[in-house]
Order: sequence, then structure tokens, then C-alpha cells
Amino acid sequence: MANKEIPYKIYLEESEMPKKWYNVRADMANKPAPLLNPGTLKPMTAEELGVVFCDELVQQELNDTDAWIDIPEEIVNFYKMYRPSPLVRAYCLEKKLQTPAKIYYKFEGNNTSGSHKLNSAIAQAYYAKQQGLKGVTTETGAGQWGTALSMACAYLDLDCKVYMVKVSYEQKPFRREVMRTYGASVTPSPSETTEVGRRILREHPGTTGSLGCAISEAVEVATSHEGYRYVLGSVLNQVLLHQSVIGLEAKTAMDKYGIKPDVIIGCAGGGSNLGGLISPFMGEMLRGEADYHFIAVEPASCPSFTRGKFLYDFCDTGKICPLAKMYTLGSGFIPSANHAGGLRFHGMSSTLSQLYHDGLMEARAVEQTSVFEAAEQFARIEGILPAPESSHAIRVAIDEALKCKETGEEKTILFGLTGTGYFDMVAYEKFHNGEMSDYIPSDEDLQAGFDGIPRFPGNE
Amino acid sequence: MANKEIPYKIYLEESEMPKKWYNVRADMANKPAPLLNPGTLKPMTAEELGVVFCDELVQQELNDTDAWIDIPEEIVNFYKMYRPSPLVRAYCLEKKLQTPAKIYYKFEGNNTSGSHKLNSAIAQAYYAKQQGLKGVTTETGAGQWGTALSMACAYLDLDCKVYMVKVSYEQKPFRREVMRTYGASVTPSPSETTEVGRRILREHPGTTGSLGCAISEAVEVATSHEGYRYVLGSVLNQVLLHQSVIGLEAKTAMDKYGIKPDVIIGCAGGGSNLGGLISPFMGEMLRGEADYHFIAVEPASCPSFTRGKFLYDFCDTGKICPLAKMYTLGSGFIPSANHAGGLRFHGMSSTLSQLYHDGLMEARAVEQTSVFEAAEQFARIEGILPAPESSHAIRVAIDEALKCKETGEEKTILFGLTGTGYFDMVAYEKFHNGEMSDYIPSDEDLQAGFDGIPRFPGNE
Repeated sequence: MANKEIPYKIYLEESEMPKKWYNVRADMANKPAPLLNPGTLKPMTAEELGVVFCDELVQQELNDTDAWIDIPEEIVNFYKMYRPSPLVRAYCLEKKLQTPAKIYYKFEGNNTSGSHKLNSAIAQAYYAKQQGLKGVTTETGAGQWGTALSMACAYLDLDCKVYMVKVSYEQKPFRREVMRTYGASVTPSPSETTEVGRRILREHPGTTGSLGCAISEAVEVATSHEGYRYVLGSVLNQVLLHQSVIGLEAKTAMDKYGIKPDVIIGCAGGGSNLGGLISPFMGEMLRGEADYHFIAVEPASCPSFTRGKFLYDFCDTGKICPLAKMYTLGSGFIPSANHAGGLRFHGMSSTLSQLYHDGLMEARAVEQTSVFEAAEQFARIEGILPAPESSHAIRVAIDEALKCKETGEEKTILFGLTGTGYFDMVAYEKFHNGEMSDYIPSDEDLQAGFDGIPRFPGNE
Repeated sequence: MANKEIPYKIYLEESEMPKKWYNVRADMANKPAPLLNPGTLKPMTAEELGVVFCDELVQQELNDTDAWIDIPEEIVNFYKMYRPSPLVRAYCLEKKLQTPAKIYYKFEGNNTSGSHKLNSAIAQAYYAKQQGLKGVTTETGAGQWGTALSMACAYLDLDCKVYMVKVSYEQKPFRREVMRTYGASVTPSPSETTEVGRRILREHPGTTGSLGCAISEAVEVATSHEGYRYVLGSVLNQVLLHQSVIGLEAKTAMDKYGIKPDVIIGCAGGGSNLGGLISPFMGEMLRGEADYHFIAVEPASCPSFTRGKFLYDFCDTGKICPLAKMYTLGSGFIPSANHAGGLRFHGMSSTLSQLYHDGLMEARAVEQTSVFEAAEQFARIEGILPAPESSHAIRVAIDEALKCKETGEEKTILFGLTGTGYFDMVAYEKFHNGEMSDYIPSDEDLQAGFDGIPRFPGNE
């Protein structure tokens, strides 16, 4: 098949869709560090985690030995409503850039949540339903995860309570209505509805919120209401596991046409898309079967990889969650309200953190006006209006393609186009009006966050 | 292939995409009546039409003999960026409705314009570019057509001036930003920028606008600026021609799996989606090769087919356009601002009007709250948040499926899901808040529109 003409969009047959998720941890020599109980500083047990998370998801969270996990048939069927997602050859972009590089993107935005988040939302909602729960709670930043979870819960007839980072709630008034269409309740965070929310509001009056705050509130509600559990759209191992469908589909499609990517690029907030996209490729590299150049792209205003510390930290601002070992800006870090493009989480997936720490991945921080320039350029050439988050990956994909133009290298670039920007028009408007600025935290700005990292022996 | 298992989504290969558009007029015994010059009441010549429209599009407009028109390669390649669109088997909806009916929909919303409008936008922009024009002008109602044209013009580097119906401009603040992302200029209509706009504002102060007004303004600008022509997103024969890709793809996909639809349903504003979807099926019926039940669905608040008159009328409120013979509420008809769901045009495609007049099609009017009920139900079950326009077709598809449940008939239903509702959240919010009401014009309400239909011998 290697010489078959490559279409603009490669769609797999439904029969070619993955039947199992791939668990990259199984192939890692250095496993990601376990979650710790912040009281005892001992690894969280399944029982302890079961207070917050659904039982089956706890098993997936702790499982770092099985490389393949069956996808339940009901989830496969739900996937079929919006998957396989297309692997797109960016012929028009290549031509416009006059690059010898071949550019591909895996487009996850063709569903109403507008992003890849639905891949894990349906899995988590499914296991909650299986366990006989009444509902789930969660946080959402840009709103994509909240929308995805609302959709999954509507489908399965589960209650869904969403805490939405206040700045997004205000910037994206219509996101709330979409979630409402799917029957979810949405509360701007921090709120007065929880103890931790009230505390954060006292300590930081006028805060525009952060994912960390919203997580604390959602966890509090889940653990204080009978029949509820908390679910999370990124960061966790289980989420990377579910998101491996992105990479598995991409790899199957590329293998089918004899394409081997040289560079694989993804935006990184908590790491769900990046982890999902690269997992099967990283697996090959870990097993010594292939070699790839992975690039994680993060906003310069929330630079967990490039300026964070690799330490145990809370996943939430309220410090009620377990400790995860990860690249972190400190759970006290709250990104500038000026920053429009999602990816506002202070930490990063433990799995990706370990891979980065082991030198298996590069990370780059990019500034938001250059991200929106890339977004607009991409929209006009490729027709898809991208989410600001996804546009971080576009920025670096274009940069890499332009490097190829200089060097003449015919590299094959694959990037994750995680979603669409239809609910981000306030940010686009700012950009069009020249009202968007860049914010790069100084070392002093970052210090406040680092002060919040818990200190204990071995975590300095 | 007849017994092959039918996937959730049927995607054609790029090689199976249509290379020619199908011109249903060629197979009609009773051709649609020609456009008339309102001054002479004689059929518009190519030369006269060439003042307003691009030359090649004039040829397509007048051509009622050639059944197949080649799609230029550049347009085929643009189509490949977002087509083929999926033909979806609504397994989940069928199950939820417990109907023996088999429901399919052709989903045209997976592109940034959010609808099928892009199919004709790229064609019209392409011919304008070929003719060496500087730019094009147009009107937009819900904003889908304007967005589509902006995308096509950005791709081809053409200037794009959009007149947007004022009520939509206000209800859809972010649509403007999307068009701006694609470099278009957007003016709410009626406006002070044109003579006809100023006149309409004098005569109807406080009007929320209508497609008819916006058309008048866009035509005035096109004909008074060197190097510009006017393009229209619906109603015209050329648009139905371009939109035939919808039906052609649907038919190829169905034939591939041995599926024959019994009922084919589309929403009808100006007729572009309905005409495009049904064309190849209607062609078979006209040639006596097959039999189908076609249903046009229109809003009860703008009921051109079901309560209009089949007469020559202006396509625009300002009465500067040629006369078209069509089902019309009168060019003076301005739909209630209360009506949220697009499909606000007073008239209807001449081709569809003739087919309806000849008894080849049924028409139904539906009320908007029942449309939004169907929209929400569909969103929760099938995952896609539909445009209000498209939801008119969903309403009737569900009604037909429920009839099958009563009678036990295993009908195969095909409907057009023209687009997504991501920019319609103001309307959804109204619906959620119980603030949406239905408006059905009384006969007296309609009289004002009918008074505006031009009177001349044979047009009474």
C-alpha cells in the first residue's frame, strides 16, 4: 500500500477502529510515580482512590503492567457515532508554506463537544453507570471537557455537575447553554457552593479561577454526595489510556498508507491529547522498534514542562486531592486572566512528566499572539477554525515545516488538531482588535506557585 | 453489497465523490419558469443577468437542458477538504424511538461554515475568480452562507462583502468574528450604506431585517462597484445545481449498501439544501425509474409552500432583482423577529416550486417550539447539536418514524442534517428558559406580503 495515492482525509473503516486501548505505562522502564496520600505520604490504595473515583477507573489508574485494555462494546458503539476521526493531509497548507515537509493532522473536532475530550468522557461515564452511580462531578476550563461529559451523561442518563473556571464561564457564555442542552448543571468556579470554593474566594477575592480550584470544588461535591464520583478530563493515567484511541487510529491510518511520521506534535495542558496521540508511537520507541521526535507545546504563560519542577504536588488548588509526581508550577499557581487559550493547568500528566524527564520528548513554550496568528493562517488555508489550545500545536507544526523549507528536508510532520474554536470567538475578537497581549511570567511570578509545592523528604 | 452490515457512518472514498453536478431541470417535463426583467416582463437575457452575476454562473442559471455539468478540478479539490460528508445511520435514535423505521441523515455540518452552504460558496467564488473579479457581495441570514462565502473567498483571495440580516447579526455576535477571521466585511442589514437600505429603514423604522432586504443591499453594492458581482446562497437554479453533490453522495452511499429510501425529508428556506438532497432521487422519479415520497419542511411562521402563492415575484424586498416564478409570501413579507430558526426567505426556489406545483413533493409547516424539542432530543441521542434550520427536518423525520412505530411499517427515512447549531445558542437559551413562543401568521398578517406581489396579466 506504500505507494497508494494519499487522499486529503484518511478515514478508517469502523472495523479498523481500535478494540483495545493502549497503556503506554506497560512499556515504560521508569514507571510514572504513584499517587500519594497527602496525609501519610504513602501510595494511594485502590480503596482510598475509590472514595473519589469509580472502581473500574481506579483499576485502570493503577494498572501499569497491562499494555492493552479492552474497550467495552458500548463504548465502541458510542465511538462510532463520531469516530473514526479523519487523519488529514494538509496539502493546502504545505502548498501555501512552500515546504517540502509533509504535514498531517489528526482532527478530533468533528463532534459537538468540539474536541477529543469525548473519548474519555464516554468511558468515564460508562464505568460510573456500570457501578450504579447517580451522577458525576467535574471541572471544566475551556468548556470542552464539560461539554463532552454532559454529552456522555445525557446519552447514559447520568446526572452531571460541572464546575467551570470563572474566566471561561464569562468568556464563553454559550458553552453553558450547550451543556444545558445536554442536561448538565454548570457552576462558575470558585463558587460559594463548596467549602473549598468559599475558602479560595476569601484568600483570593476577585480571582478568575483556575482548573486547580474547580477540581477542588468538584471533588468536594463528589465525596460529600451519596452516589456521586468525581471524573477528570486530563492529567490522570486513565485519561491518557482512553485517549490512546487518537494515536491508535492515527497509526493504523498511517501504516495503511506506508507513512512514518518523523515529528509528532501535540499541545499540552494536562496532557490528555498529547499523551493519547503519542502513546502508540512512544510505545514503539520504548520497545526500540522505531524512533520519533515528540514535541509537547505549551503556552509561555503556563509553562509546566519548560519552567516547572519535577516534584510531588497537589493536582488541585484546594489541596484536597492526592499528590502526583509531575512537572508543576505549584498548585498555588493561577495563570494570568490575559491568557485566552486553555491549557491553564499548573501541572502535567505523571506519565508524560516521566517520559519528558527521561529525555524522550521535547517541550516548547509559545506565546499567544503567535498562536492566534497560526490559528488564523490555518483557518484560511485549511478551512477549519481551530481551538486556541490546538493552535499551539499548529504554531509549532508550521515552524517545523518552515524549518524544512530552509533545510530542504522532506520531514513528515504529524500534529494533533484537538478541536474547533467556535466557542472561542471572544478570544479571536481580541486578537482581531489588536487587544491581545503576551504574558510571560517572571521567575518572581512563578515563585508564588512554587511556594505551594508541599515539602517533605525527597520532594525538595 | 445489499447484505453488507451498515456502519454508523458511511464515508465514500474520495474517488467516489461526484465529478459532475446533476441538473434536475434537464429531466423536468415542466421546466421552472424563466426569470423576468421587471421592466419589460420578458425573460432575462444572459447579458442582463451578467450585470449582477458572474458569466459562467449565468450560463448555469439558464441551462435547463444539460443534465450533467462538470465540476472544475479546483472545486473538487476544495470539496476534498471537507467532503465527502458522512451518511449517518441513526441507530441510537431508532432505538430510542423504538421504531421499525430505518433512519439515515446526510450530515453537512462538519465544516467551519457549519452547513452545506460551502458547496455552492466555493463554486461561486471560483467562477468569480476565473472571471478576474475583485470581489463578491452577498447577504446572509443565519450567517452560515456568509461564513461559507468568507471561507471560499479567503481560500481564493477574493474580497467579500456580507450584508447580514440585522436580527441574526444581533443574535449571533460571534458569527461576525468568524467571518472576520476569514477576512470578510460584515454589515447589519438594512443599513445606511445603500440607497435601498436607507429607503427600507425610512419605510420600516425599527425593522429587524429580512433576507429580502439584505439581498437588495448586496445587489446594489455589486452593481455599483467595478469588479464586483453578487452571489446568492440559495433560491437560484445554479445553487441547487452545486448542492446536488449532497444528493449525489447520499445516493452513491445508499446504492453501495443496497439501501433505497422511501421518504426523503429536507428543511426548506430558499430550497438549496432540499433541492440538492433530492435532485438525483427526483431525477429518477421524473424519468420513471423509481418512486419516492419527498417532504419539504418549512417554519409555520414563514410558510412559503404551504400558504404562499405560485406567482412571479421579486426575490428581494427592495424590488431591484428580477422576478422569479415561485411560491411566495410576497416580497413585502417580513417574518416575525420571534422566529429564531433561519429559513426566513419569503419565496422559494423556482425549480422546487414547479416540482411542488406538479404534485411531486409534499410540504409541511412546523412550529418552532416543536422544532427545538426535536433538536434537543436529537442532540442528546445522536450527539450532534443541530442548527435550528436542520431541526425542522429532524422534527418531521421523528414524526414519520413514530408513525412507523404505530403502523409497524419498516420505512427507510433519509433526511438532510444541513448544519450545526453552535452559533444558535441564544435561541437554544430562549428555549431552555421557556421564553420561546410560536408565531403563526394569520391570513391578515400574510395579506401585507401578498399585496407586494407585482400585478400584471397572467400574474394574478
